[in-house]
Amino acid sequence: MSFQGEQYPGVQAPTADSEGFRLNHTMLRIKDPEKALTFYTRVFGMRVLRRLDFEEMQFSLYFLARPEAGEDMPEDAGERTVWTFSQRGVLELTHNWGTEEKEGFAYHDGNAEPQGFGHICFSVPDLDAAEAWFDANDVAFVKRADQGKMKDVVFVKDVDGYWIEVIQADRLGQMGD
Amino acid sequence: MSFQGEQYPGVQAPTADSEGFRLNHTMLRIKDPEKALTFYTRVFGMRVLRRLDFEEMQFSLYFLARPEAGEDMPEDAGERTVWTFSQRGVLELTHNWGTEEKEGFAYHDGNAEPQGFGHICFSVPDLDAAEAWFDANDVAFVKRADQGKMKDVVFVKDVDGYWIEVIQADRLGQMGD
Repeated sequence: MSFQGEQYPGVQAPTADSEGFRLNHTMLRIKDPEKALTFYTRVFGMRVLRRLDFEEMQFSLYFLARPEAGEDMPEDAGERTVWTFSQRGVLELTHNWGTEEKEGFAYHDGNAEPQGFGHICFSVPDLDAAEAWFDANDVAFVKRADQGKMKDVVFVKDVDGYWIEVIQADRLGQMGD
Repeated sequence: MSFQGEQYPGVQAPTADSEGFRLNHTMLRIKDPEKALTFYTRVFGMRVLRRLDFEEMQFSLYFLARPEAGEDMPEDAGERTVWTFSQRGVLELTHNWGTEEKEGFAYHDGNAEPQGFGHICFSVPDLDAAEAWFDANDVAFVKRADQGKMKDVVFVKDVDGYWIEVIQADRLGQMGD
């Protein structure tokens, strides 16, 4: 189970019981769907796969993914939902109705105390071009590629303040060495 | 951009600037790598793709994915890192050294106040079998499939208390109707 002598404490071999399990999505709560959807579709090129509204519980869910995952999406609503829940790399945004109208309302990013969740991460083909694209869209940076100890790693904030790491995979071959 | 009349406020068409962007991973901080790695490898059948240690900053990163993503993993360390950062559906676990020895230390799950991040989600081929498998491994449930208003949706907790949604995609075709 180890790679070139790396130590992985506690690791066990998978059994047949978990066969077919798939990491489908990550859920983040958002204050204002209009702002969040503009951000993720314009800046990160994501596409809304499905919106589900829950009238009784007063919330809506938006499931987003990159277009590469969306090319053969079914047109039937039920099949489309099943398809959405079968993908990998989906982002679920939860909107509790009315939060967008509450002045001062904000969600917790997980990096300020109390800490927990840290970030989501996109890999991009060209990190310099991505930085320029973020600047062109007035995206807030936590750090640029040339700042701090983690060179070639960019962190930006989404419109709710959640951190998004942005990396170019082939510039990270020496990371951790 | 809309699907069958669904309203997506704020959505914009992607441009060439975001071409090739890929949702690579979600990062969660963990208290004890031995416990977290046992949980994710045994219960969810994940595999460690790469471990990266940062001596100066006193932390380690563990990148996990399902075996389906790992069949053609490169053996060279640098190539392996690049490959890891090119995948979709990866879970990054961050271990700040020493937390496992601090009594009472715990990370924040994002569902208690202050809220933000909600959960990660696995889709599984058989939700009933998955519930039995979780019971066999003494996994803590937030809710079972037959509890609450969201039928056919299971929530369990990982060893740090983060919520994991578990669904069987083809049982959710009517969701949100």
